[in-house]
Amino acid sequence: MKTKILGILRQEGGGEFISGQELCKCLGVSRTAVWKAINQLKDAGYQIEAVQNKGYRLLSVPDILSKSEIESRLQAKWVGRPIYYYDEVDSTNNEAKRMAEKSPGAGGHGAVIVAEAQNAGRGRRGRGWESPKGDGIFFTVLLKPDMDPANAPMLTLVMALAAAKGIGKSTGLPAAIKWPNDIVVNGKKAVGILTEMSAQVDYVNHIVIGAGINVHQGSFPEKLASKATSLDMELGRQEPVLRAALLASVLEEFERYYEAFMERQDLASLMAEYNSLLVNCGRQVRVLDPLGEFEGKALGINERGALLVGREGGTVEVSSGEVSVRGIYGYV
Amino acid sequence: MKTKILGILRQEGGGEFISGQELCKCLGVSRTAVWKAINQLKDAGYQIEAVQNKGYRLLSVPDILSKSEIESRLQAKWVGRPIYYYDEVDSTNNEAKRMAEKSPGAGGHGAVIVAEAQNAGRGRRGRGWESPKGDGIFFTVLLKPDMDPANAPMLTLVMALAAAKGIGKSTGLPAAIKWPNDIVVNGKKAVGILTEMSAQVDYVNHIVIGAGINVHQGSFPEKLASKATSLDMELGRQEPVLRAALLASVLEEFERYYEAFMERQDLASLMAEYNSLLVNCGRQVRVLDPLGEFEGKALGINERGALLVGREGGTVEVSSGEVSVRGIYGYV
Repeated sequence: MKTKILGILRQEGGGEFISGQELCKCLGVSRTAVWKAINQLKDAGYQIEAVQNKGYRLLSVPDILSKSEIESRLQAKWVGRPIYYYDEVDSTNNEAKRMAEKSPGAGGHGAVIVAEAQNAGRGRRGRGWESPKGDGIFFTVLLKPDMDPANAPMLTLVMALAAAKGIGKSTGLPAAIKWPNDIVVNGKKAVGILTEMSAQVDYVNHIVIGAGINVHQGSFPEKLASKATSLDMELGRQEPVLRAALLASVLEEFERYYEAFMERQDLASLMAEYNSLLVNCGRQVRVLDPLGEFEGKALGINERGALLVGREGGTVEVSSGEVSVRGIYGYV
Repeated sequence: MKTKILGILRQEGGGEFISGQELCKCLGVSRTAVWKAINQLKDAGYQIEAVQNKGYRLLSVPDILSKSEIESRLQAKWVGRPIYYYDEVDSTNNEAKRMAEKSPGAGGHGAVIVAEAQNAGRGRRGRGWESPKGDGIFFTVLLKPDMDPANAPMLTLVMALAAAKGIGKSTGLPAAIKWPNDIVVNGKKAVGILTEMSAQVDYVNHIVIGAGINVHQGSFPEKLASKATSLDMELGRQEPVLRAALLASVLEEFERYYEAFMERQDLASLMAEYNSLLVNCGRQVRVLDPLGEFEGKALGINERGALLVGREGGTVEVSSGEVSVRGIYGYV
């Protein structure tokens, strides 16, 4: 109901009024119901003007990350259907996993968990992820695909592609990918992605793909300052980012890329696009392989998501491990 | 305390008495403490005779599956340290996963979860597993290894080997392995194993290996009767199986084989022993591969745990999928 009213008020755009009567008709509800919903929206921070004989109009769209705000913007078939919103959770991945394990019911394929803050946000290999209230978008997509567990790691690249694309489309920023799954803007990290899977030997129970997008931060602690950035910092705050719109955009891209991926359960059809956004491409990289450290020139990913690195004597496929890119995160 | 007293009373074996004073000395506690613990053991079902001026002796060892009973028998360094015992859980794998996700504290590497009954016991691919109270051993080993997630599926074969060996040692039954991880006795299934993993792309959060051992069942429902058996049925109930002793034996074998496995994170050093217990070996098998069905002769596993199947034109490596063995579970 609130979702629908928001959608209608926003459609009117340029400050046009829509009468209470029209709203009632559109939604098939009473004027009291409309009036009640409008008041709830005002309480949530929306500036809605009500003028007698004219109706309602939306004066400004605040940066609210709520279930209604996201759902009213989202044009996806099954991703984010539904959205589960929390003011604060330990981590959205943890919440998604708990949901998935409560068999059956809550937490179906495509459910998205969003939180305004995380008090135990996690990065890869047990590292933490700063998740301050109001500054970011912290979300997790829950998937229950019929998939060989060996293919699951590729999904982290699918999300990276969706995040880079979604950020580019909705902010205009040159969001690029640092293999396998960091998103960098002007050489600094703006998004982290953490994919986790619960699997049997040849059967995926569920996959959770979590992402943290730095949006409104104005600065970072000293130890991160040379490596991390936020979208507002890169935009110079000319126009603050609306997080719900950005998230909807990323989720829509994810749905599209995921469906392309699932046709063959590999990255063959996404490789070209991924590589075109790959900040590593053509650059000197340093690979911290379990077998030792070496340098080479990144050539792009293959259809399994491995990074091809050219060096004397041939090309090496790097399928995991840490890869530093010259010029990124302070590596010179 | 109860664990130690049990151990001492059992050591005395052949019905010898041990004085209360000796017990106090051994354990470094008061007579009242000993007396209290003895009473608790009696309440739990142990028949302990107390004779003045002689002391205590154990008249019979009942089939009790308790933390004390298991721990007092277990000679392992880290597997089953500690044992978590439940009268009933949904499934021991679920309980182990919940434990593992409550960071840090409970649920360390090697913890074993045992239940007298499961109300939502699970088999592979979401199938159920009958887990009636008192008839079986339902347990899960929780592991937190530093391991490439791609190696985790091999652990299911490590547990299969441990279960076959442990059952053989403690009951004398000819327990064999049907690849990859069923245990069969005289052509019928007596143990099921379900391995599940929570992992990041290149990092294992935790692995749970659950097993259900059919011990005391006297019969099975009609649809299972041709395929399933219990250890008592195969022993003809001459001597009922003591579940705690059997479990301790399986866990000890598991610890030994797991350590051998971890040296190279492959099955190279366990292959010969696994293959010697493999009921498939040298037999005609039917493979339900994702790519189609075919028949061939099973030749044993390789060091990655794949089943080698010989057919016209060469040998195929089967790494997952269903494999039927002629003469097993009614396949003729």
